[in-house]
Amino acid sequence: MGANRIDLKFIRSLYERIAPHITRTPLCPSTTLSTITGRDLHLKLENQQFTSSFKERGALARLQQLNPDERAAGVITMSAGNHAQALARHARRLHIPTTIVMPRTTPVAKIEKTKYFDPDIVLMGSTIDESVAYVNAQAASANLTLIHPYDDAYVIAGQGSLGIEILEQLPEVNTVVVPVGGGGLISGIAIALKEAKPSVRIVGVQSEQYSPIYASFHDRAWSAGRPQISIAEGIAVKTPGRLTLPIIKDLVDDMVVVSESAIETAIFRLLDIEKTLVEGAGAAALAAVQEHPDIAKGKTVCVISGGNADPSILANVIERSLVRHERVVRIFATVQDVPGSLSKLANDIGETDSNIIDIYHRRAFGTSTLDATVVEITLQLRGEDDKPSVIQKLRDLGHTVSDPDLANH
Amino acid sequence: MGANRIDLKFIRSLYERIAPHITRTPLCPSTTLSTITGRDLHLKLENQQFTSSFKERGALARLQQLNPDERAAGVITMSAGNHAQALARHARRLHIPTTIVMPRTTPVAKIEKTKYFDPDIVLMGSTIDESVAYVNAQAASANLTLIHPYDDAYVIAGQGSLGIEILEQLPEVNTVVVPVGGGGLISGIAIALKEAKPSVRIVGVQSEQYSPIYASFHDRAWSAGRPQISIAEGIAVKTPGRLTLPIIKDLVDDMVVVSESAIETAIFRLLDIEKTLVEGAGAAALAAVQEHPDIAKGKTVCVISGGNADPSILANVIERSLVRHERVVRIFATVQDVPGSLSKLANDIGETDSNIIDIYHRRAFGTSTLDATVVEITLQLRGEDDKPSVIQKLRDLGHTVSDPDLANH
Repeated sequence: MGANRIDLKFIRSLYERIAPHITRTPLCPSTTLSTITGRDLHLKLENQQFTSSFKERGALARLQQLNPDERAAGVITMSAGNHAQALARHARRLHIPTTIVMPRTTPVAKIEKTKYFDPDIVLMGSTIDESVAYVNAQAASANLTLIHPYDDAYVIAGQGSLGIEILEQLPEVNTVVVPVGGGGLISGIAIALKEAKPSVRIVGVQSEQYSPIYASFHDRAWSAGRPQISIAEGIAVKTPGRLTLPIIKDLVDDMVVVSESAIETAIFRLLDIEKTLVEGAGAAALAAVQEHPDIAKGKTVCVISGGNADPSILANVIERSLVRHERVVRIFATVQDVPGSLSKLANDIGETDSNIIDIYHRRAFGTSTLDATVVEITLQLRGEDDKPSVIQKLRDLGHTVSDPDLANH
Repeated sequence: MGANRIDLKFIRSLYERIAPHITRTPLCPSTTLSTITGRDLHLKLENQQFTSSFKERGALARLQQLNPDERAAGVITMSAGNHAQALARHARRLHIPTTIVMPRTTPVAKIEKTKYFDPDIVLMGSTIDESVAYVNAQAASANLTLIHPYDDAYVIAGQGSLGIEILEQLPEVNTVVVPVGGGGLISGIAIALKEAKPSVRIVGVQSEQYSPIYASFHDRAWSAGRPQISIAEGIAVKTPGRLTLPIIKDLVDDMVVVSESAIETAIFRLLDIEKTLVEGAGAAALAAVQEHPDIAKGKTVCVISGGNADPSILANVIERSLVRHERVVRIFATVQDVPGSLSKLANDIGETDSNIIDIYHRRAFGTSTLDATVVEITLQLRGEDDKPSVIQKLRDLGHTVSDPDLANH
């Protein structure tokens, strides 16, 4: 075929060649997440690829098309991380020189994991889009082949191998929910599945911070506006693919957006319940089922697309999730400026079976008298609804306590 | 057989009955952890059991031995968590009433996950050992069967099924490294493997905070001393089993202890590299290979025994790991008390490609003049060795900067 007609047969032929070199990741039912969401959920765990994302499929499929001259000259790409790692891994395996151009804002964890495969790394620009002109110029002047992260027929078809695997692992699948950045993954999956089993519904997910394909799908305008931050930086793409957008409009059944907090909750649940680490983009499909349960008709596969989460961001997400679910709360307490009053308060808090995480003595603020101080205390509680009862117990023990997160404390 | 002679045949017979109701967890080679440790490492992922630990094997094996009267009367146990969840899950499935006695200090996450299966939960005492007398009295007065977490022949034999699985999944195994609390898991594995493949070396691991079996194995004294805290609370057991200790002395090849910081590093690496969440005890076997590489002869299986990590403790471990590896550092900077000086400093830090996590203005401390202030800045760096170069860059830009973590800053 030409690169212009991607079909199931083409995807199958590429899949045969890449299969020996990539992981056939597990497709697992999730009993607990199904209970929580009231849907029949299955997880396709692409975070278990060696470089922790589906990107190896497309990158390797494209590399396998290079002729000997192209291999010798080398390849170049722009990528914030997962495509970079995937390309660097397989290019090194095939002894193909590789240049990776990354925005300077790329998370440390992703840069380090790409370095592991020894490509040339160029950090420049503040977004992927800014790197494009540089990459095109370099490709032309040094005769390098650009391996585009999504707008390439071989890359799209390579990602489509995921659709074939899903159907082999769960033939009775009814819905597949897929994170969408540039659109390569969902395009490949949609082509494979709509030909192999036309009744399967394909639903795409974008972050509400970056939703150009969602907007275009629903015939709405979208503009990037001021630079946005998304926890799902892997799908924070401003420019839909020239090849992918028409495929998505043609074959995808629905597109939804999800909030940042839904993505954080999904990351937390996958870690807490499934014991698996995912990055923001990797959690987007579960987040979509949480926020839009109606999209998950019948047996639903959430594509967990990647696991390269920055550890410090992860720590932050865990702490924010604990606060959001009121497992970590703060209270204000007024203590008299006499020896022993703080110690009695700390002791009484222990009696409520809460753990003190942090105490902040606010000497100058919050009280009108000189002989008393307001103390801000951060507590870890046993359960989600324990805050009022902990406050009540402390009041019963004679303390002046208030809830700073209520309007009238 | 009687409960006094546990052998491979007995373990096999129990395994046949429990196998349909437990997960045959994956045994995966780890390329990257093998590179880091210089050993040939394979991970047996018992954190992928439904209740996230190996404890289901033994608990279910024991429940299947109850006669109809015992089933109707119900069972009781003391457990800080994993045995509790395992027992509660399978007892509910078999409609057997269950009472779980837990120390009041049990992490919230473990209590909540046990509650999910609706047993009666009694929170009392500050350690497991303190619960024992209460449990024995309850068992006698209400005619409940005590399902001991480790000192029971059927429980030991049930855990031994893990040894059979390891040998089926990796017949060429040379060494198995096993976390040791009460000793049920390593006893069962050692019995199964030493009979099926006597050349396999079995190595047990305890935390240096709780090492009674390690001490006894090496004929040394150990006393609990003051209450210790361990991140591996799942193996923080003061009292070796009456049944397990002789088995361990007879069959286990070596026992080692690991530091708390090695356990934290192992938790972090399993999360960061393998994208899998483990609790402290679950990371102990990898920690042992990190600290004592010589124990890992040939193809080495680390038993990743459980995944019930408390999320807030996990967030803490991640942050401490980042600090330990100097990915998060603090510096002191002196800024003049004139408008704009802090803003210039912040801007120049941005030029070093570091991220400011936290700034603490210490007005009263650290400088001898009235018109200058010392600011403590917490930074996330790009790489592990970047701190000196970031400090030098800021000095070159005219700032007064010091490293509080060096002796002479």
